[in-house]
Amino acid sequence: MLVKRCCAILLALWGVQASAQAIYPIDRATMVVDGKFDFKVEFDGVVDPSSVTITVNGQPYEKVLGAKAAFLPNEDNGKASSYILRDISIKHPGKYEVVATAAGKSMKVNWEVYATGPRTAKNVILFIGDGMTVANRTAARVLSQGIKEGKYMGKLSFDDMPRMALIGTSGVESLITDSANSMSAYTTGHKSSNNALGVYASRAKNNLDHPKVETIAELVKRKTGMAVGIVTDAEVEDATPAGMVAHTRRRSDKSEIAEWLFLKGADVVMGGGSAYFLPKSTPGSKRKDDNNLIDLFKSDGFAFATTATELKSAVKPDTRKLLGLFNTGNMDGSLDRFYLKGGTVKQFPDQPDLTEMTRKALEVLSRNKDGFVLLVEAGLIDKASHPLDWERSVYDTIMLSNAVKIAKDFAAKNNDTLVMVTPDHTHGLSLVGTIDDNAKGTEMRDKIGVYEEAGYPNYPAPDKNGYPPSVDVSKRLAMFYGNFPDYYETFHPKLDEPFAPTVKNDKGQYVANEAYKNVPGAVLRVGNLPRSADTGTHTADDGVLTAMGPGSERIHGFMDNTEVFRTMVEALGLGYDGKTKGKTPAKPATRR
Amino acid sequence: MLVKRCCAILLALWGVQASAQAIYPIDRATMVVDGKFDFKVEFDGVVDPSSVTITVNGQPYEKVLGAKAAFLPNEDNGKASSYILRDISIKHPGKYEVVATAAGKSMKVNWEVYATGPRTAKNVILFIGDGMTVANRTAARVLSQGIKEGKYMGKLSFDDMPRMALIGTSGVESLITDSANSMSAYTTGHKSSNNALGVYASRAKNNLDHPKVETIAELVKRKTGMAVGIVTDAEVEDATPAGMVAHTRRRSDKSEIAEWLFLKGADVVMGGGSAYFLPKSTPGSKRKDDNNLIDLFKSDGFAFATTATELKSAVKPDTRKLLGLFNTGNMDGSLDRFYLKGGTVKQFPDQPDLTEMTRKALEVLSRNKDGFVLLVEAGLIDKASHPLDWERSVYDTIMLSNAVKIAKDFAAKNNDTLVMVTPDHTHGLSLVGTIDDNAKGTEMRDKIGVYEEAGYPNYPAPDKNGYPPSVDVSKRLAMFYGNFPDYYETFHPKLDEPFAPTVKNDKGQYVANEAYKNVPGAVLRVGNLPRSADTGTHTADDGVLTAMGPGSERIHGFMDNTEVFRTMVEALGLGYDGKTKGKTPAKPATRR
Repeated sequence: MLVKRCCAILLALWGVQASAQAIYPIDRATMVVDGKFDFKVEFDGVVDPSSVTITVNGQPYEKVLGAKAAFLPNEDNGKASSYILRDISIKHPGKYEVVATAAGKSMKVNWEVYATGPRTAKNVILFIGDGMTVANRTAARVLSQGIKEGKYMGKLSFDDMPRMALIGTSGVESLITDSANSMSAYTTGHKSSNNALGVYASRAKNNLDHPKVETIAELVKRKTGMAVGIVTDAEVEDATPAGMVAHTRRRSDKSEIAEWLFLKGADVVMGGGSAYFLPKSTPGSKRKDDNNLIDLFKSDGFAFATTATELKSAVKPDTRKLLGLFNTGNMDGSLDRFYLKGGTVKQFPDQPDLTEMTRKALEVLSRNKDGFVLLVEAGLIDKASHPLDWERSVYDTIMLSNAVKIAKDFAAKNNDTLVMVTPDHTHGLSLVGTIDDNAKGTEMRDKIGVYEEAGYPNYPAPDKNGYPPSVDVSKRLAMFYGNFPDYYETFHPKLDEPFAPTVKNDKGQYVANEAYKNVPGAVLRVGNLPRSADTGTHTADDGVLTAMGPGSERIHGFMDNTEVFRTMVEALGLGYDGKTKGKTPAKPATRR
Repeated sequence: MLVKRCCAILLALWGVQASAQAIYPIDRATMVVDGKFDFKVEFDGVVDPSSVTITVNGQPYEKVLGAKAAFLPNEDNGKASSYILRDISIKHPGKYEVVATAAGKSMKVNWEVYATGPRTAKNVILFIGDGMTVANRTAARVLSQGIKEGKYMGKLSFDDMPRMALIGTSGVESLITDSANSMSAYTTGHKSSNNALGVYASRAKNNLDHPKVETIAELVKRKTGMAVGIVTDAEVEDATPAGMVAHTRRRSDKSEIAEWLFLKGADVVMGGGSAYFLPKSTPGSKRKDDNNLIDLFKSDGFAFATTATELKSAVKPDTRKLLGLFNTGNMDGSLDRFYLKGGTVKQFPDQPDLTEMTRKALEVLSRNKDGFVLLVEAGLIDKASHPLDWERSVYDTIMLSNAVKIAKDFAAKNNDTLVMVTPDHTHGLSLVGTIDDNAKGTEMRDKIGVYEEAGYPNYPAPDKNGYPPSVDVSKRLAMFYGNFPDYYETFHPKLDEPFAPTVKNDKGQYVANEAYKNVPGAVLRVGNLPRSADTGTHTADDGVLTAMGPGSERIHGFMDNTEVFRTMVEALGLGYDGKTKGKTPAKPATRR
């Protein structure tokens, strides 16, 4: 016996002994009572099930979690064993300590399961300004409101909300998140990893086998009669909208995501990305099967629109379900749609604005007497910031402000709607001063004014949509990104097409796109990112969330992005046990 | 008559007719009732006083403003006339339209004069994180609290306050502010211009002749018995502390500012900058006269300290006035004082920490039964961000958090203290990922991890002061500024001395400092700022203000920096007319 223990210790020291490597949900996970999740324990070697004990608060896990986990003897290419128990939930709030032991070696995680008070909000509207950075807000305010002698002539619609917080966006494996990981935290309350949606990134080989966590859309569909809306100007299968319904390790599973949009019961789906709705036989389809999802949605009673004009007439007085697909890929932003006509505007000349989609979504969803959860993503703020195209990013920030205005007006009617506006992550964008073509200097950098030399830009007054009708003025904002690949800086907005800063060379590295080399004044800027980066990258700088309406009272200070989920869940009383007095407890599902 | 009018029109068209060029305070100025200001009207030519009419709300200005303005017939080198009326105030809240007309041509500005409710706060503590950007907060949280699987292990002290707002920092003449202009907005409620403190930048030739506006320090000294404290780790004459007491077009008037610190009745003054307190005969003095301000303060009963040790014993149980001057110039930041011993630490080895200064200031000021206004500036956040020395900037952000903790604890005792923590402006700093010395790649940029490649840094756990005891770890934060002069990027913290990115060349241009050229891995980064910029420059991105305590309820959304003044004035009831019922109306001055 002594010999055996010594050997065990030696093996442990050399790191080859079977032991618990990971438990999902991870340490410090927080969950709403009765929220669904998959429980997984991964040992870092093949283990004998008889050597394994898994306890929750000291009891056998089966007693607390309600069922027995499946044993996977040879996961990880046969190298290690796991236990998995899917689709469970915990019914009682409290602290839960999970201990997994194999061959004498243990791992421990702690979870917090919380109840909520009664429902205080009928509806939740979550606006995501994808990649929206403080500088986006500042510049959008300058351009859309004007500023004179240091004081703005007006505010963005989300500048005037009572609650604000800084949001931490880092994920399980990294400081820097992508939009899948960060949206997943908003929609599930669980941290995840880059590229993952609605799952913890485990060692499972199949994208769809990772331990799942329930999304806010699934939760309200399961527990209430609420409607769900998903609106974006990116592809509807893109990470942010997908975060409402998807469970995959890879956000690139867009065909599956398109199916989930239907299967998870979304009532309103609008955006780009029709390529994943069309059977492979249809030109432009990106599906690998013959499923026609548009037909599937239609057959389930969805009204359908492919243009702004169609959208106007698609919604009838009794329309309760609406699908709008306005582009095969991402839609075009406001600078291209309204003014420059770049991007895919010539191909899709009649795309609706985010405001029109928001208005129609509210019209349809508000017919549900049980309320709704609506996601509206201004996805192109990020799509433009990646290629360092700040003008397009800022124009779409103005568009977001216009869309939020519609939601504020809607919310003002009954004060029963929680409205949150937040980025999912940030970019390294800053407003440095102005560029004055008429300033002295031979190099363009000498025409950049800082401090008192900056003065104010000379954009024309905003038009009826709130945008300056021209962007390439003689004295314009000087905005720069702090993290970039090699590129040619032209010091001018890109009037023809969105900026394409890099191209791939023979070695697979991204190098400066020489198409901009001969723009007068252009200079090569050597990047500070690895040459594997084709564009600017996300930053870990906190995002700024602003909020109003019932449930927004808890928004303050610094908050983890998982707390956005909790804020929605609390406002909707989704973990209400009926014991506290309140006005509108969450109702059981009545449809779907 | 017709001929005469035609001529006038022609002259007007050609822009040479005398007309109102500027009125101070400017259009849209807001002022507290009975707040002092100088009224100035500048015509853009020499005018005949008999052709001039100046009205306020349609009445002769003398009736409303209470006195007759002096006529300056030949200002601006004899080219133009002005009227100036100093040290006036308006006693009644309301809207005021000021119209100045000369030779038939008019100019108009509108002011708002506001009353306040009764006093709700006994004390106000205003923390300025000079130049503190969102990325400073994020990185300070990572380094001082730790982060694991995406969730921080703790928060900064000012991460946990109930109120937050974005702050607009632009000034009268430019989007981009310096610390004088922006602090002046906080302390006077009036916008100003780069380099100006407590004045509107008019065309006056003498720095001290510009139209003045009263500071919060002057206001509480004039109207209440409150004490005033001014604490910084920069020079006490630097722009931010000077904003409490100074009235000059040029922040560089440091000898005068040192005198104002005394003359304006500050009770506690602590920081660096003793060079402006010493008579010119003393080695190291920067004064041009024989005034010994230290003696002046001492003779007025100020306790005095020049080191942390002296500070400990300088404050007696009855000390009500305290002067601490711990460095001839700026003090050293926490990274140098505690760990690296760079900067002037060898010359001044016993400088107190911002926490010790804050604690002593509170000890002394809280003896005043009428309450106090205390400014605490973490000035070196900005001083380090200018030369792109982000580690020093972030360590001092941690120091600010430590100091705010002391104020929070103080405020928690009675809940009668408004505490605000805010930058005065921002820098273009972002947290991009990590730099891993052990990553593959020949160039340092290839060792920068973004997204999932970033992972987490390996700084050691924070010590008792909340700082990682070493900063040059093998896997460290990758932080970059978006606006910079030419410099050599070393991808490492500067362990010997604070970073000096540029040197001046023969042409007076700032070029990369070759002292860093041979650091292994260093690369030349060509700047995007004019070659007149010796360091990184300020950005116009909104700042993030956090607040707690009575009076903080009005903090929300986007606010102009002048509203910070109003928030203090409202909390202290400094514009209370006695008509509204309340607990503690502002008291008249009882001392000084």
